[in-house]
Formats: sequence, C-alpha cells, structure tokens
Amino acid sequence: MSTSTHPNDPALETPALLLDVDALQSNLARMRTHLKQLGANLRPHVKTAKSTEVVRRALEGQPGGITVSTLKEAEYFFENGIRDILYAVGIAPGSKLTHVVDLIRRGAGLTLILDNAVAVDSIAKVAKAAGIRVPILLELDVDGHRAGIAVGSPDLIAVARAVHAADSLELRGVMTHAGASYECRSAQALREAAAQERLRSVAAAEQLRAAGLPCPVVSIGSTPTALFAESFAGISEVRAGVYMFQDLVMAGLGVCRIEDIALSVLVSVIGHQAERGWLITDGGWMALSRDRGTSTQPLDQGYGVVRTAEGAAAPDDLIVVSANQEHGIIAQRSGARFDVERYPVGTLLRILPNHACATAAQHDHYNVVRAGSYGPVESWPRISGW
Amino acid sequence: MSTSTHPNDPALETPALLLDVDALQSNLARMRTHLKQLGANLRPHVKTAKSTEVVRRALEGQPGGITVSTLKEAEYFFENGIRDILYAVGIAPGSKLTHVVDLIRRGAGLTLILDNAVAVDSIAKVAKAAGIRVPILLELDVDGHRAGIAVGSPDLIAVARAVHAADSLELRGVMTHAGASYECRSAQALREAAAQERLRSVAAAEQLRAAGLPCPVVSIGSTPTALFAESFAGISEVRAGVYMFQDLVMAGLGVCRIEDIALSVLVSVIGHQAERGWLITDGGWMALSRDRGTSTQPLDQGYGVVRTAEGAAAPDDLIVVSANQEHGIIAQRSGARFDVERYPVGTLLRILPNHACATAAQHDHYNVVRAGSYGPVESWPRISGW
Repeated sequence: MSTSTHPNDPALETPALLLDVDALQSNLARMRTHLKQLGANLRPHVKTAKSTEVVRRALEGQPGGITVSTLKEAEYFFENGIRDILYAVGIAPGSKLTHVVDLIRRGAGLTLILDNAVAVDSIAKVAKAAGIRVPILLELDVDGHRAGIAVGSPDLIAVARAVHAADSLELRGVMTHAGASYECRSAQALREAAAQERLRSVAAAEQLRAAGLPCPVVSIGSTPTALFAESFAGISEVRAGVYMFQDLVMAGLGVCRIEDIALSVLVSVIGHQAERGWLITDGGWMALSRDRGTSTQPLDQGYGVVRTAEGAAAPDDLIVVSANQEHGIIAQRSGARFDVERYPVGTLLRILPNHACATAAQHDHYNVVRAGSYGPVESWPRISGW
Repeated sequence: MSTSTHPNDPALETPALLLDVDALQSNLARMRTHLKQLGANLRPHVKTAKSTEVVRRALEGQPGGITVSTLKEAEYFFENGIRDILYAVGIAPGSKLTHVVDLIRRGAGLTLILDNAVAVDSIAKVAKAAGIRVPILLELDVDGHRAGIAVGSPDLIAVARAVHAADSLELRGVMTHAGASYECRSAQALREAAAQERLRSVAAAEQLRAAGLPCPVVSIGSTPTALFAESFAGISEVRAGVYMFQDLVMAGLGVCRIEDIALSVLVSVIGHQAERGWLITDGGWMALSRDRGTSTQPLDQGYGVVRTAEGAAAPDDLIVVSANQEHGIIAQRSGARFDVERYPVGTLLRILPNHACATAAQHDHYNVVRAGSYGPVESWPRISGW
C-alpha cells in the first residue's frame, strides 16, 4: 500500500468519496466490543455501506447474517456469499414477490417483515404457488416513528396468527427500529430510547409466546440505541449500519466524536467571492447529498464541516453553507469574512457529511485512505438502486 | 410499443423512476418554440437528464452543442457523438486538467469556464505542455448567486487579458447562470431576472470588446429566465436543463403546470398507520432524493406530490410528508386523518419530485411511459458520478 499526499499531484479527480479505513476499523471495534460486553449478536445493516469489503469487516466475530434495505442489496450480498439476509422494509405485494421467490429458490435465506394482513395473504399465496416457505418477522412500532404494529395492539396477535396459520410462511418473531432515537437530545434520552426499544420488543415477544405462538427472534436496532443500550436481555440480535462510518448527525447526537467520522468528500476550491467571505468548490449537493440532517439539531452543520485534505480541523470555523448541483459554497459558520487567500484556488479540502447513508449513495466507490492521508490505497465498489 | 397498466401485474419493481415521454416532448417543444420566436439558439444542459435519448430529442432543430456539469458527462456525450461541449463549472487546477487534455486530444471541442487568474495560469501551462489550445469563457456573476466575476469589476478585463495573452488559451467570450431566479416569487420578478441576466452579460461583452478583446460568445441561461425572457438581443446561446422534465420547484415558481412534470417515482403502499392518517410506502429519500426545494416556496410540497399510478390527481390532497431511506410517509397536506383504506396495501402511486435533477440522480435508468400509463415502453440508461 502506497500513499500520495502531495497537494499538487492528487491521484483523485474531485469531488471524490474518501473512506478512512482506520476510522472504519475503530468504529467497527467499538460496536463489536460494546455488544460483546452486553452479550448481543450483531446483524449489520448494509444500507449505509453497500459494499462487500466494508460488510466483511463488520461481520468479524458475528454470526454472519445481515440486514438489507432493498432486494438489490439482498441480490448483491447473496451473490457475494452471504446467505442469512433480513429484508427490513415491509414487503409490498406485487412484483417484488417474484424477486423474493427467485432469491429463495436460488438458496438465499431471506427473511421478510410485514405489519398487516394484506401482506400476509399475498406472500402466503405467492410462496405456496412457488412451493417455498418464507420466514417472517412482524414489524413493531415502538416509538410512533413510521411503520409497524403498536405493541399492545390486538392486531399483533391477529397478524401473527395469520402468519402462523399459513403453511407457506414461518413465523420467526418480531423486529423493530427505534428511529425516533435520532431526535433524542441527551445521553439520558438515548439510554431511555434504547430501553424502550428493548422492553417493548420483549413485551411483544412475550405476548406472542403467551398466545402459544413461536417467537425465537427478537431483533432491534439503530446506531444510537445500539451504542447507548445498557442491556440486551431478551434480545436475539441488534441491527445497525451508520455506526460503521458515523456522521455529523451522530456526532450531534453525542453518539460519536467528529474525529470518528470515517466518510468524507474531497473537494477542490475553484474560486473565491472574497467580499462575501465565500470559497467556491466543486463539491455540490450531487457529491454531498441534499441531506440536512443537522438542520434540526442544536448545531446546524450546513451541508458539512470543512476539514483539511488530510482530515485535520481546518483553521477557520468553516462549513458548507449552501450547495448547488456541482458547486459548494464554504463560509465561516459565523458568516464573518475571512482571509479566503488562505485557501488558494486548487486547494483540496475534506467535507464531513451530515448523513453517511445519503452521501455515500451519491458515489459508486470508496477511495480508501489511511488516517491522515488522502491518497487512496484501494478502491472499493459500492452498489445502488433497486 | 405495448403498455401494461394492470395494477396487480406491474412490470416494475418499486420504487421506479418514470419518464412520461409525451410530457417530455411537450416541454421540449415549448422551449424550442419560445427560443425560436426570440431568435435564440439552445445549448441544452444535460445535467438533469444525463441521457443520450433525452438529449438527442432536446437537440432537434438546434446547433448541436451541449452544456455539462461534470467531465464524466463530457466523456459520455462525446463518446455518444457530441463534439461541442461547454463544461459549465469553474475548472479546478489539478487532476481534472489531465482529463480535459485527454478529451481535447481525442477530438472533443471542450470549452472551459473560469473566473480567476490562478485558473488561467494553471490551464495555460497544462495546455501549453500538451500542445493544445483550450477555448475559454469567463464566468460572470450577474446576481450574487455563487461564482463568477461581478460585471463592472476591473477583474473582468484583467482576467480576460490574461486569457487572451496565453497562446494555449482562446478567449471565446462570457457566460453566466442567473441562479437567483429560483428565488423569484412572481412572473414579473422572473422577467426582471431574465432581463438582468441578459443586460449584464451583454454589458460585460461590450466591456471586453471596448478593451479590444474578442467576445464572440455570450452564453446565458436557467430554465426560469430562459422561459420568461422577452428578448435575447446580444445573446449567442441559451442554456437550460430542468425544462425538459420540469418539477415542483418550477411549478411553484409558475414556470410550468403540475401537469407538465414528466418525471415521477412509482411507489407501492406497504402499510398504513390509520390513526395518524399515514400511508407507508417503499419510496423513501433514496428514491425521491433529499431535495426539499419547495420548503422555501409559498407552497411546501414535502418530499413530493402524490398522483395516481396513471398520473392523475389523487383524490385526497396527499403529499409525502416525511421520508426515511427506503420508506416514505404519505399524509394529507392538512394533516387531517383520511380513509387510508382507499389506498390498500399494494396500491401503486406516483410521486412528483421537488427537483428533477436530484430525483433522477438517484436512479440509473428511466422507465419511459406514455401519458396516462405506468407500463414502461422503453428503458433509457442514465449516467452518474464524476
């Protein structure tokens, strides 16, 4: 592995997605250690990384199953040797079922989730016609965030019974995602969100078991709740994805430090508007994404925090204050003018992302770098689409 | 061409990007007619469509040159037979210049833009070493929107002279993009933005000519100013891209009608939260993009307006009120509860995008449909990345 850090001879055409493999390994180790201490297994969510190179590292010391957000991810990781796959978006009746049948027939151990009787009926019929048996988890709503059956609702047992009654379906248990944890504003609130996610999921599992229904799997997770949980009693697996890279939203939540963020976009200064206190760069929203996840946090980071090309804190308090498709505008957070000539045209800068999932999705590969360098040592492909 | 509109037998796995080719042709005809009436040539901006199929149609009746926002677009369209290419992002010193030299050596008629002396020096040196001559436009700032030299600034002549003095550069003229037109709030304001864009660009051209410098090209454009301009006197070409597809931001500006929007995302209802008045779909921000361009307009359209799968107005006033990576939450604009059972699990819906450039970028192909149908008749690839 050789590195190149000469600013006048960059190997990369900007904008370029950088992945600091040292920060990645450190983030993976932190989650691994935390879950091990609490006796939980990890089923990494691959929706952030969408890369076999990253996910292979995340699976070290774990049972080997993954979580996916699309059937395209299921397809890709199955073709790359991963069999145990949880598709963690409620299945839609229609053409997706044809894809599901095809994956299962080819040998994928694909588990689906659902929260309603229409989905049960349609999957049961398609699976029966295909002569396969599909493992099912019931999606729970533990915090009013989006989908799922409210814990305590009579629908839970009704839908569970419908799944259990269908020969072509196998009721495997319950799952949830405490997405509202992203709105927590303190470590205490995160610990409480984690406890609520666990307790409500365990309660639902007990409700099923009390009704004589099987519930071997109790699957929960989000990066904030996984890292702030103080117990995983009653939980069979934890899902998380963003923790691999971390991002400004996670830093704003107190889930990580700025220094832990492994993902960034390398950009070039292409001009100045000195009297407005602006640097113009070639890193617009196409490279950074339109995600403004920190806009509702106490510290709004604009379209991203500016670091030096090597990843160190930049001397002025600079953020990307606005973005067009292929232009980023960098300014001081305070809005004050500064000496733009400290950043001559051609200067390379690194932008830390609001939301790693969104920023990574704008790129088709990772330029893998070592800590303190922006010369890529490897290129790791990533997938996109459906 | 055959169409399929049976809701239980969709050819597409959702979420899927739809392009209504009839609306596209109508949008292209409108711009063509408008510019012809005013005697202007069009240099379509390909950054929205990034597709040869679309751009070939946009070029009908035009000189044949295009505008690109990345060198990847330049590469792709050059390989697909287009020679005259304006790269409309200020060139950065560094590895992009190697790419530029390669394209020009292979026969691309690539024109670069810049607004500063550092860029002049670096391009001149690289071009000289490569034994090529690079056509240059000076980027003007006509509205304080982002990059460019302010019209009237002494920098304009200074940078122009530096370009003209370099044997390896050819001063071709001036260009600007009136990006602030996106913040206009009335037809009159749009007409004024268009007039300002034209008059300031013509003034800059006259400033160059008065200084004895060549300025054959005066290139302006944005979809709003192109369509609201009442004169193109003194202008050699108009650039625009979003007009091909239109979107909710353009509709909010009064530049088009909702019915003109050619681009949409087909999604499936995957669940309900009846007591909250929510439909849950599989169209999240990964499919719609994170763009919230209408959030600063008088009518905030959330993450998009809901239409029937066939493209008609949906019976309730529904928009996508929030989005996770692969989940969209649809609700009434008023927030009132409605009969979610009107949209059973499995229902297909079409979501109109805030910003066509951002939404299209989340997909690798267009499912081309005819007006009133969602059964694709063709698939057109599109490119992404840098």
